[in-house]
Amino acid sequence: KRQGFPEVIFGEGKEASHIIDISRAMLSKGDNVFITRMEKGKADAVMSALPAFQYDEISKTLFMKNKAFEQKFNDYIAIVCAGTSDLPVAEEAAKTAEACGVEVRRFYDVGVAGIHRLFAHIDEIREATVSVVIAGMEGALPSVVGGLVSHPIIAVPTSVGYGANFNGLSALLTMLNSCASGISVVNIDNGFGGGYNAVLIHQIANRST
Amino acid sequence: KRQGFPEVIFGEGKEASHIIDISRAMLSKGDNVFITRMEKGKADAVMSALPAFQYDEISKTLFMKNKAFEQKFNDYIAIVCAGTSDLPVAEEAAKTAEACGVEVRRFYDVGVAGIHRLFAHIDEIREATVSVVIAGMEGALPSVVGGLVSHPIIAVPTSVGYGANFNGLSALLTMLNSCASGISVVNIDNGFGGGYNAVLIHQIANRST
Amino acid sequence: KRQGFPEVIFGEGKEASHIIDISRAMLSKGDNVFITRMEKGKADAVMSALPAFQYDEISKTLFMKNKAFEQKFNDYIAIVCAGTSDLPVAEEAAKTAEACGVEVRRFYDVGVAGIHRLFAHIDEIREATVSVVIAGMEGALPSVVGGLVSHPIIAVPTSVGYGANFNGLSALLTMLNSCASGISVVNIDNGFGGGYNAVLIHQIANRST
Amino acid sequence: KRQGFPEVIFGEGKEASHIIDISRAMLSKGDNVFITRMEKGKADAVMSALPAFQYDEISKTLFMKNKAFEQKFNDYIAIVCAGTSDLPVAEEAAKTAEACGVEVRRFYDVGVAGIHRLFAHIDEIREATVSVVIAGMEGALPSVVGGLVSHPIIAVPTSVGYGANFNGLSALLTMLNSCASGISVVNIDNGFGGGYNAVLIHQIANRST
Amino acid sequence: KRQGFPEVIFGEGKEASHIIDISRAMLSKGDNVFITRMEKGKADAVMSALPAFQYDEISKTLFMKNKAFEQKFNDYIAIVCAGTSDLPVAEEAAKTAEACGVEVRRFYDVGVAGIHRLFAHIDEIREATVSVVIAGMEGALPSVVGGLVSHPIIAVPTSVGYGANFNGLSALLTMLNSCASGISVVNIDNGFGGGYNAVLIHQIANRST
Amino acid sequence: KRQGFPEVIFGEGKEASHIIDISRAMLSKGDNVFITRMEKGKADAVMSALPAFQYDEISKTLFMKNKAFEQKFNDYIAIVCAGTSDLPVAEEAAKTAEACGVEVRRFYDVGVAGIHRLFAHIDEIREATVSVVIAGMEGALPSVVGGLVSHPIIAVPTSVGYGANFNGLSALLTMLNSCASGISVVNIDNGFGGGYNAVLIHQIANRST
Amino acid sequence: KRQGFPEVIFGEGKEASHIIDISRAMLSKGDNVFITRMEKGKADAVMSALPAFQYDEISKTLFMKNKAFEQKFNDYIAIVCAGTSDLPVAEEAAKTAEACGVEVRRFYDVGVAGIHRLFAHIDEIREATVSVVIAGMEGALPSVVGGLVSHPIIAVPTSVGYGANFNGLSALLTMLNSCASGISVVNIDNGFGGGYNAVLIHQIANRST
Amino acid sequence: KRQGFPEVIFGEGKEASHIIDISRAMLSKGDNVFITRMEKGKADAVMSALPAFQYDEISKTLFMKNKAFEQKFNDYIAIVCAGTSDLPVAEEAAKTAEACGVEVRRFYDVGVAGIHRLFAHIDEIREATVSVVIAGMEGALPSVVGGLVSHPIIAVPTSVGYGANFNGLSALLTMLNSCASGISVVNIDNGFGGGYNAVLIHQIANRST
Ligand SMILES: Nc1ncnc2c1ncn2[C@@H]1O[C@H](COP(=O)(O)O)[C@@H](O)[C@H]1O
Ligand SMILES: Nc1ncnc2c1ncn2[C@@H]1O[C@H](COP(=O)(O)O)[C@@H](O)[C@H]1O
Ligand SMILES: Nc1ncnc2c1ncn2[C@@H]1O[C@H](COP(=O)(O)O)[C@@H](O)[C@H]1O
Ligand SMILES: Nc1ncnc2c1ncn2[C@@H]1O[C@H](COP(=O)(O)O)[C@@H](O)[C@H]1O
Ligand SMILES: [Mg+2]
Ligand SMILES: [Mg+2]
Ligand SMILES: [Mg+2]
Ligand SMILES: [Mg+2]
Ligand SMILES: [Mg+2]
Ligand SMILES: [Mg+2]
Ligand SMILES: [Mg+2]
Ligand SMILES: [Mg+2]
Repeated sequence: KRQGFPEVIFGEGKEASHIIDISRAMLSKGDNVFITRMEKGKADAVMSALPAFQYDEISKTLFMKNKAFEQKFNDYIAIVCAGTSDLPVAEEAAKTAEACGVEVRRFYDVGVAGIHRLFAHIDEIREATVSVVIAGMEGALPSVVGGLVSHPIIAVPTSVGYGANFNGLSALLTMLNSCASGISVVNIDNGFGGGYNAVLIHQIANRST
Repeated sequence: KRQGFPEVIFGEGKEASHIIDISRAMLSKGDNVFITRMEKGKADAVMSALPAFQYDEISKTLFMKNKAFEQKFNDYIAIVCAGTSDLPVAEEAAKTAEACGVEVRRFYDVGVAGIHRLFAHIDEIREATVSVVIAGMEGALPSVVGGLVSHPIIAVPTSVGYGANFNGLSALLTMLNSCASGISVVNIDNGFGGGYNAVLIHQIANRST
Repeated sequence: KRQGFPEVIFGEGKEASHIIDISRAMLSKGDNVFITRMEKGKADAVMSALPAFQYDEISKTLFMKNKAFEQKFNDYIAIVCAGTSDLPVAEEAAKTAEACGVEVRRFYDVGVAGIHRLFAHIDEIREATVSVVIAGMEGALPSVVGGLVSHPIIAVPTSVGYGANFNGLSALLTMLNSCASGISVVNIDNGFGGGYNAVLIHQIANRST
Repeated sequence: KRQGFPEVIFGEGKEASHIIDISRAMLSKGDNVFITRMEKGKADAVMSALPAFQYDEISKTLFMKNKAFEQKFNDYIAIVCAGTSDLPVAEEAAKTAEACGVEVRRFYDVGVAGIHRLFAHIDEIREATVSVVIAGMEGALPSVVGGLVSHPIIAVPTSVGYGANFNGLSALLTMLNSCASGISVVNIDNGFGGGYNAVLIHQIANRST
Repeated sequence: KRQGFPEVIFGEGKEASHIIDISRAMLSKGDNVFITRMEKGKADAVMSALPAFQYDEISKTLFMKNKAFEQKFNDYIAIVCAGTSDLPVAEEAAKTAEACGVEVRRFYDVGVAGIHRLFAHIDEIREATVSVVIAGMEGALPSVVGGLVSHPIIAVPTSVGYGANFNGLSALLTMLNSCASGISVVNIDNGFGGGYNAVLIHQIANRST
Repeated sequence: KRQGFPEVIFGEGKEASHIIDISRAMLSKGDNVFITRMEKGKADAVMSALPAFQYDEISKTLFMKNKAFEQKFNDYIAIVCAGTSDLPVAEEAAKTAEACGVEVRRFYDVGVAGIHRLFAHIDEIREATVSVVIAGMEGALPSVVGGLVSHPIIAVPTSVGYGANFNGLSALLTMLNSCASGISVVNIDNGFGGGYNAVLIHQIANRST
Repeated sequence: KRQGFPEVIFGEGKEASHIIDISRAMLSKGDNVFITRMEKGKADAVMSALPAFQYDEISKTLFMKNKAFEQKFNDYIAIVCAGTSDLPVAEEAAKTAEACGVEVRRFYDVGVAGIHRLFAHIDEIREATVSVVIAGMEGALPSVVGGLVSHPIIAVPTSVGYGANFNGLSALLTMLNSCASGISVVNIDNGFGGGYNAVLIHQIANRST
Repeated sequence: KRQGFPEVIFGEGKEASHIIDISRAMLSKGDNVFITRMEKGKADAVMSALPAFQYDEISKTLFMKNKAFEQKFNDYIAIVCAGTSDLPVAEEAAKTAEACGVEVRRFYDVGVAGIHRLFAHIDEIREATVSVVIAGMEGALPSVVGGLVSHPIIAVPTSVGYGANFNGLSALLTMLNSCASGISVVNIDNGFGGGYNAVLIHQIANRST
């Protein structure tokens, strides 16, 4: 566990009882605990044992705040995506950052097919320390944002789409081949990784020297 | 051969002598002849037999105008791409259209990583009948243009790039998955196909009823 | 929204309540509304709130006509496919065009394995402004039609088939590699895209100059 | 070695001296010898040692007839392809059959983009015992022929094409997914395999019972 | 419909009522009717309307014999596979041949990992006119059989296996790359195609000249 | 051009004369200029026109320092890789950072198969602001480093290897699937991207607030 | 059946009744019987007929010990993996070895992202005859272990992960490309194969000469 | 360096001068040195500096024996392959084993298409401690050998073949999916890995207890 981060559990493929056990051990050490990829049913089972957990249905995350955040920040991370279908991944990124006590600002209706909506918000995005840009289908959004801002971008491809998107492969390749510089990429649908890398960068941007 | 089109020869894999023979047959019928994918050496060999051919080194095409174009058009096709590396494919599209007597306007420095350059020309692009948008690497340009214009777009992926672009697969998938509507796609590096489809559409836009 | 087109909603992955909200906003502006990829259950939920929607079970589309179509056309789009299994995609294309007020003619039993059936209709196909040709499995139909007509063809690969068709990859590659010219391609199962591109071309064929 | 067949050597990757040695051994047993995939230089080296070999430059095969063919046939195999680029593979098939003493008839300008040329020859193709149908790019020709004839078809995909044909993968998948029945497929560019399977079928069609 | 073959319906993706309609039309013309890819439920629905259909649960085929077979044969087709898991595909091939009035002999426990079982039957396999060899997992069986018999082999890859067999891709590639000659390949799990091609060859082996 | 960065030219596919022209324009504005992917011959051509360029043969980069670096930093970036074969990519990353005036420390013999060498340097790696970790073949190094340091890691897969590494695909997938958190990935062989992203992060770590 | 091994049945795709029949035949010969890939329901059905079978829910294996193991060994096989999600595959390997009378030692919490846990056990792993190393996601564990031990390693990739792990392809490629020597690989999720190969090696290490 | 093994250098991509330096350092410690993947020209350069190296042209390996082998063995490793084209990989395996002082026996003309040749040698193969089985094209040989012997098999796929063998992918998948048990696999063309793993197993089979 890195400084400033909660304990994190990857919920997928773990049984509720097993998650409860791990969580109890972590909580007993006074840590904040953040759990990803929790379907509602399993989350409910965990919460009936540990009711202080808060469940977020869109990102499918559980969070329990056991102690105050370790650091205070003045600036924020921008979470940028195109709309409805990418929301679960975008919110996984956002909740991850918030579970570290970092402010996020959401820009959720700014896909490349309607680029004026991106322009309407570009100044506020530019002032973030770092952006997490989420996109499915053709995955072009990080390239466009990357050409407009000068901070680092963590690009998160999603599996949203059909046919020749091959479960996110299309968006993944797009992002890896971006001609805009300052973009690095995490796994398909890995909102957690997007948020986590952004927080790491945000923290060192705010370190006291 | 469709009306208004020259006779077309796909030069790749054909020997100069064979091309000369086919060309002679076509020329004897009074046709215009357009040949694609001609390396300089082979083009020179053809031109020493048939010196009325004009060679274009960037698009690697040969053209011989044997008779006047069949139709007069008032409007133009926009050929849009990001820059240096995609030029051979863009010019193959442009020369194809010009070999059909159609005016093209070139917008060749407008990649998504510097989107303001696209905006500087967007009004002139918008007024075209149809656009051919060429892009390699991540291939995001057609999606962005598609969101800004309302005419049909023929998207041409190129094999420009390296690594995870897998010889144009990345750009191809991007274009097939575009969330902008009004985009259809031809084969990787198929500038000819881009230009040809654009001319077909341009012609029916100008048909006299 | 382009001129002459209804407002379009991509239904997949959106909840009924969300679709009802968006639809209401659009309807209040007097627009026609067209929704694709609606399973029957979800369509029923939308229609119990907004009963003026018409559901089409084969194409899985909803349409509500709120105002007269903006333009009158004399000619038609040909929708060409081989038979039973490709019908849902073909009808998605057809309904898209009809939701724009464009006449379509359906040629639905003309696969390449029984090419005489195609020949029986070829004259009527030839007189269309543009064809949408849908095919799964080996996807050869657009190549054959492309050799017989001189208007543009929008080719739509479908995921119909099994084994080495790899969910439509086979038909997609076939269409991208067609040796017939005048063919451009949209995503696997993207009947909407096929119809939409055809309408765009059809409109400019009918623009008043 | 099957009855009626020459000894066959796969020339690729073998040195001339090694090929000469194997050939001598075979010739000493009185066999006919057929060698595939021989570049001109290597073929010349073999022929300077064994001048009775005949080299065919298009198919890149060597043949030496050492004894009379074992069987006399009244009928023929049809070799069908679209044109210039597929010729080397088509001729590898043809020479393979001829090296077994089987008559072949060549139909070499009948691609699907100009289907009337196929129709001009269809009766003569229909009367063959079996067809070998060779195609690159989209590989649609076997499907169309398969719908028109009732004998078995051996389909041979070629690597001819570029971009999304992925070195013959496109044509291979097309042929495996054909909706016409009576088609089976060999490896990409395997003209030998096409000819060989056709001869096997041709032989049993002519067995004396 | 080829001579000697029943009318064939590909049942997958068709509704029972639609299949009943097509069948009725065929039966009224006096044809035999053979239907593949019928799950039990759908088959039951068809049989309650048309009780003369016979259902085979392993191959998932329906057959109705309406008239005598057109030809009498003295010889047989060998159907060869390794065991339990490939049985549905092997039986689809077998039932296809039997629906054409052709005798099949089944060799169903002869995988390459226990090659002595193959040897125990090899003489009887050798005397067949043609073999259909079915294999999943590594798909090596056709290569081994191909080295031991001299008649043509139709190889059918199956999707049986897991992990790196990628739903039959492994077996498909194995068969296409076989170093044994005399093997041609059909689509993954295409037992019907295997049987059909074998019958075509078997018929011409038995044609009266 | 971002603040603190030189003007950057992607040399691949551009002719020397074209590069000289672009460079002259940039130099006239007083910028530092950095050029990647320059084969020696082309670099020599550029240097004979512009002798102030410095060529580095391993990374194949050219650099001309025209003015002092804009910022002074106290800390450094770690460049970590396994050895000989990955050096060109590692040095492209290193030279990119140095062209921005950022100190790099090189850890070039620390592959996972001899993990004690990594441990010998781990403290100095830990104290970097950010690491660029380069690996070919199986690409496991970023995962191991990621588990040992708490700053962000930019992972760069290389195409070094053979067979089932599929030109870098293996290392790319490894890095995208890393179970260590804090890792983001750039394109195969994209040393420039690795260095560039690291500098961006390094800069914000050193911004004056 | 090899000496020292039980009879093995691959349970997947076989019906309970069929498994009971095969088991009875084997048991009547006095063999030990080991069955893999048995879902709980099917295992219960088998056990109600043959109650002496022991079911293990994690590895989904059934075992019946009918006679004493044939050999006594002093040493052990190490089974090494990272944690929760890979357990079913690891236990399939372990149970396979135990069904041959070989001792296994389990090292189940030693993933590369927390490499100190591996180091805590490395001496005990080193003393094994052979290791089976199981990993999903990036699959880096065998490379790291391979660099630390000098006995052979059987690497088992698992399908655990999501997105760009492509159902185990990522881990598989990683292991095949390992720069550590002494590693060979079995199919994705093939715990049985991992255990089986390890036992084979273990046996020859213990053969009496 | 493991006990009993020479120092090994992977020659590909390293310059002669660099190899000479590394070799000198190793030789000065009294080690035996073995170098793989050395083209003739580079090998000559190394030998002119270090003439005690022996070059083997088929396997492209260099070996210098500086001291006696550490162990004496009574038994041998079987190296099994089909013929001419796979020889370089087979010999890389053989030379690797011999550089460790282990006897190898070569069985080099035993492909599955002529299985009687394998049977002629099977007893001698059976008596080996371990087999390395090399195959290209369809890669079926390890499955067949695996069914006939009871010792472990290291399978080495080669890139020999064309078309749908996709540079060795076909043989690799075949081997990973083998239904014979006791087979594990190394990278495509990795003769060294095949030999190395075999020696490791051979050594523990001969350890003194
Ligand atoms: N959604 C996610 N995707 C990828 N990695 C995750 C995710 N959520 C958590 N993780 C990682 O998984 C680790 C916990 O894994 P585990 O020990 O299996 O619970 C965390 O430290 C994270 O690095
Ligand atoms: N660069 C190109 N890419 C794809 N198709 C082309 C190209 N150039 C020409 N063609 C097509 O090739 C046909 C001529 O082919 P051929 O008869 O082989 O010369 C033309 O009618 C075009 O349809
Ligand atoms: N062009 C070809 N493609 C595939 N297989 C071939 C080809 N030419 C010959 N063969 C096969 O290769 C065998 C001879 O291989 P070899 O013993 O290596 O010369 C012949 O019996 C044929 O089965
Ligand atoms: N989980 C497994 N994965 C791969 N192969 C297996 C597995 N379990 C058993 N086998 C193999 O399958 C053979 C039995 O197959 P079967 O005759 O179909 O029951 C055994 O001898 C093993 O070689
Ligand atoms: Mg930027
Ligand atoms: Mg648009
Ligand atoms: Mg046409
Ligand atoms: Mg037919
Ligand atoms: Mg044979
Ligand atoms: Mg870390
Ligand atoms: Mg080791
Ligand atoms: Mg064995």
